[in-house]
Amino acid sequence: MAIGIRRERRVALALTAVDDAGVTPEPLRFAHETLPQRVRFAPGDAGEAVAEEVRRLGGTRVMAIATNPHRAAPVLAGLSVAVLHSDVVMHVPLAVAERARSVAAEYDADVVVSVGGGSTTGLAKAVALSTGLPVVAVPTTYSGSEATDVWGLTEDGRKTTGVDPRVLPRAIVYDARLMLGLPVETSVASGLNALAHCVDSMWGPRSDPIDRALALEGIRALCAGLPRVVADPRGLEGREQTLYGAYLAAVAFASAGSGLHHKICHVLGGRFDLPHAETHAVVLPYVLALNAPAVPELDARMAQAFGADSALAGLEALRREVGAPRSLAALGLAERDLASAVAPILEAAPADNPVPVTAEVVETLLRHAYEGTGPDA
Amino acid sequence: MAIGIRRERRVALALTAVDDAGVTPEPLRFAHETLPQRVRFAPGDAGEAVAEEVRRLGGTRVMAIATNPHRAAPVLAGLSVAVLHSDVVMHVPLAVAERARSVAAEYDADVVVSVGGGSTTGLAKAVALSTGLPVVAVPTTYSGSEATDVWGLTEDGRKTTGVDPRVLPRAIVYDARLMLGLPVETSVASGLNALAHCVDSMWGPRSDPIDRALALEGIRALCAGLPRVVADPRGLEGREQTLYGAYLAAVAFASAGSGLHHKICHVLGGRFDLPHAETHAVVLPYVLALNAPAVPELDARMAQAFGADSALAGLEALRREVGAPRSLAALGLAERDLASAVAPILEAAPADNPVPVTAEVVETLLRHAYEGTGPDA
Repeated sequence: MAIGIRRERRVALALTAVDDAGVTPEPLRFAHETLPQRVRFAPGDAGEAVAEEVRRLGGTRVMAIATNPHRAAPVLAGLSVAVLHSDVVMHVPLAVAERARSVAAEYDADVVVSVGGGSTTGLAKAVALSTGLPVVAVPTTYSGSEATDVWGLTEDGRKTTGVDPRVLPRAIVYDARLMLGLPVETSVASGLNALAHCVDSMWGPRSDPIDRALALEGIRALCAGLPRVVADPRGLEGREQTLYGAYLAAVAFASAGSGLHHKICHVLGGRFDLPHAETHAVVLPYVLALNAPAVPELDARMAQAFGADSALAGLEALRREVGAPRSLAALGLAERDLASAVAPILEAAPADNPVPVTAEVVETLLRHAYEGTGPDA
Repeated sequence: MAIGIRRERRVALALTAVDDAGVTPEPLRFAHETLPQRVRFAPGDAGEAVAEEVRRLGGTRVMAIATNPHRAAPVLAGLSVAVLHSDVVMHVPLAVAERARSVAAEYDADVVVSVGGGSTTGLAKAVALSTGLPVVAVPTTYSGSEATDVWGLTEDGRKTTGVDPRVLPRAIVYDARLMLGLPVETSVASGLNALAHCVDSMWGPRSDPIDRALALEGIRALCAGLPRVVADPRGLEGREQTLYGAYLAAVAFASAGSGLHHKICHVLGGRFDLPHAETHAVVLPYVLALNAPAVPELDARMAQAFGADSALAGLEALRREVGAPRSLAALGLAERDLASAVAPILEAAPADNPVPVTAEVVETLLRHAYEGTGPDA
């Protein structure tokens, strides 16, 4: 991974016509797996697009999964729905998955269509994991789960995750109209969570140049979309740019793997029950301020995508514009809890983070994120 | 497609903070199919990487296809090769394909490993088309055939092409060391041919934002790589950047489809037997000069990837730096033949080219390309 990053730097150097006389760069060495998936952007036409995707898959007995039948109705209108299943629970408890699998068997479903956020997509994946049924995912948040082959199940409060090609939805249909009801505040947190996928994909443990190209396009789209969502929550334009960015973010992140940012947020979220997307929105600039100076060429490419002089300046401008949450304190974290997060973060931190991760580094980062101090301080 | 381009413009506008008061943009509407493939960059280690990919595919009886057994030897060293097949002919005549299929059957091959350029990869695809055998492709040119699901066969001088998921190589192994013998002049023409894939992917008939993101990364890599190949033909660095760019070019182009540039070159190549890659290298700036001003936001993004003020300025600087072929006359086209190319080009020109394609437009373009007149003239 470090090799990959160093290599990437060289590309940037070449582009800025800086000569590298005497420097022998690391070779371009990586393996990238591209996953098969059809993705459709069909604003206002999810119903027609889903019907077409189901036909392509030869589906005739649809198991629909949706918590909001009213919202799902137009999406499902053109389908022969054998059963509409609404028993969806966050983090996909095993019992909930088993019930959904029984329903799929009982109704002899040959395709699953999910309409909803990460939990709904997650339940469809759980059905696919044991049955092999193809999934058509119609997302209504910016979670990105629909673009990955990662599944998750919880049992007795413990979450198990895994990777399996069967759970990757065979098609995604994005319809920005379905997003219009998502409150602005949730949209902003969810969109910045997607942005964190992009940023961490620049230096995640398996990050390769292809991941980074997709992540940079994701940054570009999220920067174009999120301010428009805030300015015009009922407009399609910001919604679909944000969906597009969140999709790319998920594709890149699934390949690159969790970098320091996600390790920190995983520890904070797991120990202190902080809200997921908001935690990412708060922590991201501090990780960016830490890592970006150590990888100037990646910083330059992110800056270009942000349309700013540096990645951090771009992120901070975006956060101001969209009114992002600014401190862990405001999310309800108690100051006394900071210290206990340091050791597990140190343990989880990727060995090849661009900057060595010491206790002091983590303490300072958490302190600043807790207080909402300017990350460039 | 036109919709896609217009939409993309809006993204660029958003990023450059230009306000669009009152303009209602076209929606983001497209379907993108991502094809499943593993791609590995393994400089100096093709043998090990190929052996691993064959193992992953469960292959035990390898049919190797290679025209140059000496070059292929280290690549095949770690494999159990049932048969080494060297009967490769350009454009894959049907009889040649049939012989290769018979050999695969005779030796009961369960995987095909191709080591060579586009014709070698093409023969492996022809075997896969009828047998369903998985292919591991080890390219030794910048043709990009290894990254597409397009096959081609010729019979009685007529070429038939088609698209089939079975012919997409399951894995690609790029080893820059295998490229060191490719002469500089051939490398330049082949690399500029790859660049043409990128440029035409910006406005091809099925071009979508994902294609364009990959194509832009391809431009970036080719601009970094080709001058290094020229400056240091025995260095790995330029070779692997060029391979990386050619791979992205092929992925983008297979999805976006042939734009005006490829239609022109197809007519010229088919009628006048001009050298393939060189024809692309000559024609590209003239198409770029024609189309780019009509899509200023795409031009701006290409310019960024070229590291220049405009896409055309970037391309011309690159062509000067690498000593690209400059005129159709120099490639052996006769002046009297120009006129006869106009009608078939008009017929083939995509309806949604950014600029309307009239007889006058084509005549002027061909005249300038014939003479090698500055394309911005």
